[in-house]
Amino acid sequence: MTALPTITPVSAALEPLLRARLDGKAKPPGSLGVIEDLAVRIGLIQNRLDPRIAQTDLYVFAGDHGLTNEGVSAYPSSVTAAMVGLYLSGRSSVSAFAKATGVRVHVVDAGVDADLPAHPDLIAAKIRRGTRNAAREPALTQDEVLRAIAKGVEIARSAAADGADVIALGEMGIGNSSSAALIMHRLAPAPLDDCVGQGTGHGAEGMARKRAGVARAAQRSDATAPLAVLCEFGGCEIAMMAGAVLGAASVRRVVLVDGFISTAAALAAVRLVPAALDYCVFAHGSAERGHPLMLRALGVRPLLDLDLRLGEGTGAALAAPLLVAAANLLTDVADLAEVLAGPG
Amino acid sequence: MTALPTITPVSAALEPLLRARLDGKAKPPGSLGVIEDLAVRIGLIQNRLDPRIAQTDLYVFAGDHGLTNEGVSAYPSSVTAAMVGLYLSGRSSVSAFAKATGVRVHVVDAGVDADLPAHPDLIAAKIRRGTRNAAREPALTQDEVLRAIAKGVEIARSAAADGADVIALGEMGIGNSSSAALIMHRLAPAPLDDCVGQGTGHGAEGMARKRAGVARAAQRSDATAPLAVLCEFGGCEIAMMAGAVLGAASVRRVVLVDGFISTAAALAAVRLVPAALDYCVFAHGSAERGHPLMLRALGVRPLLDLDLRLGEGTGAALAAPLLVAAANLLTDVADLAEVLAGPG
Repeated sequence: MTALPTITPVSAALEPLLRARLDGKAKPPGSLGVIEDLAVRIGLIQNRLDPRIAQTDLYVFAGDHGLTNEGVSAYPSSVTAAMVGLYLSGRSSVSAFAKATGVRVHVVDAGVDADLPAHPDLIAAKIRRGTRNAAREPALTQDEVLRAIAKGVEIARSAAADGADVIALGEMGIGNSSSAALIMHRLAPAPLDDCVGQGTGHGAEGMARKRAGVARAAQRSDATAPLAVLCEFGGCEIAMMAGAVLGAASVRRVVLVDGFISTAAALAAVRLVPAALDYCVFAHGSAERGHPLMLRALGVRPLLDLDLRLGEGTGAALAAPLLVAAANLLTDVADLAEVLAGPG
Repeated sequence: MTALPTITPVSAALEPLLRARLDGKAKPPGSLGVIEDLAVRIGLIQNRLDPRIAQTDLYVFAGDHGLTNEGVSAYPSSVTAAMVGLYLSGRSSVSAFAKATGVRVHVVDAGVDADLPAHPDLIAAKIRRGTRNAAREPALTQDEVLRAIAKGVEIARSAAADGADVIALGEMGIGNSSSAALIMHRLAPAPLDDCVGQGTGHGAEGMARKRAGVARAAQRSDATAPLAVLCEFGGCEIAMMAGAVLGAASVRRVVLVDGFISTAAALAAVRLVPAALDYCVFAHGSAERGHPLMLRALGVRPLLDLDLRLGEGTGAALAAPLLVAAANLLTDVADLAEVLAGPG
């Protein structure tokens, strides 16, 4: 098996120094709440008292899912390729949000079930044209999962080399909330019923089909080891995102995780290499049923709570400026002592 | 009495058109949650289906409070002037956050108890050097309150004329969480105990002093009319912010309200001219005790929940990109029909 990247846990010794620095700033101690915690997190990740975030790159990982043959999604797989086209045209929701927050959007073909035309903003990294139907057989082989992870590591490291301080995760893939539910079920772990939600939307009949399809997959395999779970139930885009988490953490970059599916990828990464969690910031708590429970299983609190349930990295794009603000707090704000001493 | 500005309520007829436009976008209906509601709000305020937010200007209104003579604050009034210097130097928390989110910061001397040196980014609008001690006499005369409101109207309209799409409110004033608590008590209305919180920070003894000072002020007058409440308990900066709300609403600009004290100013504005509420967006729910209750009294939900309790407009600065993103959603994102039809 290919070696997973080495990830150095952040230094616990630095935390009190970061807290003391924040407490000395020209504001009452603790008065910036969650932003102070975020500043500490970023300082720990960058391993410095004056962190800086100048560039955030968001990668939308796209892939299709054979499990859609079970009727788990309200939309056909062909929508995945159509949406990739929309991201590349800059007229998607995540593009609109990223424009508002100064985030650069890249698109990764991790496993779209279509031949996508080349485009300068599209990273061609297709593992296969969609996964196999996880209700009948393993979605991916171990070789496919390892190749997806390795490609994710490479994408994140390449982003870092190109100047990214934050690597944000987004995704698109018809059927991938079912895949994420199965990953959560085995790796959180949590009862399957608590993991299956509306995804992009379902009536009662659609939800029954989704539950049944997901249950058939769960019954087929009792895998609980993270790599095996990714093989049985994963998606190319989810495995590649897990790799991106590991790659970013291995070069001490902040990983900004989006919603339910991105969090499932982060969960897989953390189960593979626990120290990866130190490098993750969770952008938002989504409206998808399983997300709060999955975040609790990871022991984290998300930054935003806006009832989003789209994916694409929309929540990550919206949260990105909070990271810049938090770093600025440590680096740009005067000390209280200086203010009280006056201009003389 | 000077006439208050005329504010046109937003058009209820436009809301279903905005909702339909959002539902036609290339995403499942409702999947962007709070951002969709925000997009509707901005469309209603700008009275168009393709709103645009290109510029956000944040005004930090500063003023001192005679009530500090009762020991209601942990800091001396001199800190207000020192902090004004810090905002102007760009090394404050709100400056650091605004830099992260592309917001322009202006400082208004509404009633600082010091002679401030002229500065190109400082708007000299001093009503008086601090308010009178509200525990002993009315904090402001009616003429002073009306002048403060008129100046706020003028500042907001001037910002709009200079291109501001969003006028964000922030404040600084030692003692002003006590003033805001009294305004909330009378105008929400709410029991006084529910309105008094930590402000910028207190031990148990400090909190007892703050409660006692605020209670003395409340016992002195039973005013409940909004102008009278501003005279009895107000601050120059709070009355001027209320004016800025009215001025911005009168020219159909979005008002982005920060935390507890800014919300008290918005509450006063809404009690003076109820239609002003249509133009207000509430940036965050603060950690200050009375804020959730005051927001409920206004019937609104804030965008962020980050345990901030600093003021200065820090929460408004952080929320600003969400407004840009929401407007972009209506204006820049493709329709679903277009995507499903494909590139051909």
